[in-house]
Amino acid sequence: MNICIVGNSGHSPQFVKEGQAVSDAVFVGYCQGYDEEDMTILEAAFFECQIHPIRYTDYEVMMEKEKPDILIVDSMFCDHCAYTCDALDRDVFVLCEKPLALSLEDCRKLEEAERKSKATVWAMQTLRYVPWNYLARQLLLQGVAGEIRMIQCQKSYKLGSRARFFNHREKSGGMIPWVAIHGIDMIQYMCPVPFVSVYGLQSNYGNSGNGDMEMTASCLFELENGVIATVNADYFRPQCAATHGDDRVRIVGTEGILEIREDKVFLIREGQKENLPMNATKEEKIPTLFEEFLSRCRGEEGSFLNTEQSLTSTKMALLARDSAERKKILYVERQ
Amino acid sequence: MNICIVGNSGHSPQFVKEGQAVSDAVFVGYCQGYDEEDMTILEAAFFECQIHPIRYTDYEVMMEKEKPDILIVDSMFCDHCAYTCDALDRDVFVLCEKPLALSLEDCRKLEEAERKSKATVWAMQTLRYVPWNYLARQLLLQGVAGEIRMIQCQKSYKLGSRARFFNHREKSGGMIPWVAIHGIDMIQYMCPVPFVSVYGLQSNYGNSGNGDMEMTASCLFELENGVIATVNADYFRPQCAATHGDDRVRIVGTEGILEIREDKVFLIREGQKENLPMNATKEEKIPTLFEEFLSRCRGEEGSFLNTEQSLTSTKMALLARDSAERKKILYVERQ
Repeated sequence: MNICIVGNSGHSPQFVKEGQAVSDAVFVGYCQGYDEEDMTILEAAFFECQIHPIRYTDYEVMMEKEKPDILIVDSMFCDHCAYTCDALDRDVFVLCEKPLALSLEDCRKLEEAERKSKATVWAMQTLRYVPWNYLARQLLLQGVAGEIRMIQCQKSYKLGSRARFFNHREKSGGMIPWVAIHGIDMIQYMCPVPFVSVYGLQSNYGNSGNGDMEMTASCLFELENGVIATVNADYFRPQCAATHGDDRVRIVGTEGILEIREDKVFLIREGQKENLPMNATKEEKIPTLFEEFLSRCRGEEGSFLNTEQSLTSTKMALLARDSAERKKILYVERQ
Repeated sequence: MNICIVGNSGHSPQFVKEGQAVSDAVFVGYCQGYDEEDMTILEAAFFECQIHPIRYTDYEVMMEKEKPDILIVDSMFCDHCAYTCDALDRDVFVLCEKPLALSLEDCRKLEEAERKSKATVWAMQTLRYVPWNYLARQLLLQGVAGEIRMIQCQKSYKLGSRARFFNHREKSGGMIPWVAIHGIDMIQYMCPVPFVSVYGLQSNYGNSGNGDMEMTASCLFELENGVIATVNADYFRPQCAATHGDDRVRIVGTEGILEIREDKVFLIREGQKENLPMNATKEEKIPTLFEEFLSRCRGEEGSFLNTEQSLTSTKMALLARDSAERKKILYVERQ
């Protein structure tokens, strides 16, 4: 499996590291996704893993020369869709940083390209593979909370310093498709009930001169059968905090309430009086996203993620952002 | 100060107890608000406090005979407005269980009655007077979180067994005006920024045969200047839980994030690395709601609550419930 990487604006270095555990994964080439792009963190990951892919100055040349099996797309967010469609046209499998596109129209183009391709695309929905989320999902599948009726997700991030394109809506897509999308993906991961509609609010107040970048956002989703889901996101986590993010999920079911916070799972239900922190270490090994993606490229089934779910997170995030911009409730198109 | 009580469907017993600390508060009479009403808990409070108000079988007779200074209204929720308007017409001060009315039209009637009266009305927004909420508000007033940009409130209650009228929308008003209203009041208590609009969702799924009573609800409020506020409410807290409710408030400001949960205040901001639980015991004594209400009846100023805020909580709760029923974003009427 020959792998190329375009860009280093998101989580591509994580997959270089995860790739070391997969015997047939070979990183053969990489290039910038856009001219100014800082490739330092990716190159540091290559150095750490002692691998030596070729640095190309031109994406086309890289693709022609290397003819990779897999392309990791991690460029400016406005270019995710074009790189992905191009790779799919070449029948190259794509692992793409989320969001997969910045407009619902581009999502349709991507779906069309995927339908025609022998390859496929996954989004980097990395949170599915962390132990506490995995444990929570296993517990929910076992029915510990009964039927799920409400889900609340929180993403609270440090602002830090970000690449300049984050300040431009047309390049970054905004906070909901970048940050809140993780919460949106947790909704469908924890509760596989179709989305019906969304109403969103967002504000860029207090963004310390970061162009049109939002600092707060909230999305209220209706799911089928009256299930309610919310995602709150903010960039106001103080710089001094011990961790970059304060991620939380709270799931209210007919038989119990499960929470994920501080990287632990808490459950309260009849016979379990307290919110007990549960050990996320399971006997069974949790695969990495990259392991599962490579299995999928080899034609294996049964993973934590798939193309449809990757697309759903992006589409719902874009619908929520459009709702926040238009201040209207927006409904999912039924196919 | 002679006090009468009509009904025992909510928190009236609390004020009998709080009244013992006020030297000139005398409970002179009480009666049912409706025929089947169970008065046991109120009578137990009288017994505990060793006071002996007269039990009347007729509200009119009680009001004529006792001519109270104050009426505590705690009947079926659909009758709050009529009892309150009647008392205001008699220039009797009213402490009314929330919500003050079950429709926005009735709110207008109540406002009209209040304008014409020499007396006034407060709602039983009791959560303003608990130490952790008081402490949080003091900290926010001191500016520990900077400018407030987002507020999330949670109300999670045990279902328990409730009076039969809870099962009828036209008598109870629904879950948002009864439960979520506390979160709505916390929004205006913690962040005095006017409400602009609301979108709500609610569901009665899983209500164990309790008529049309909702079990889950979520409200997304826009406040002025792009401040975002949410309230999530549910009746799915397991019966075995240590406390009746799992109340939470999270306030995201430009300078820090403050949380209230498990009856504690947590704050993270520059220079304060961890979410430190803070001691809610202050040197200054926190008054009770009833003490402050009696001060207000005597014409004193400077309390934690007032009539306008009491009405705002009720009106915003009704607007949220109407939004959830109509599945439309509803806007606050500007006066």
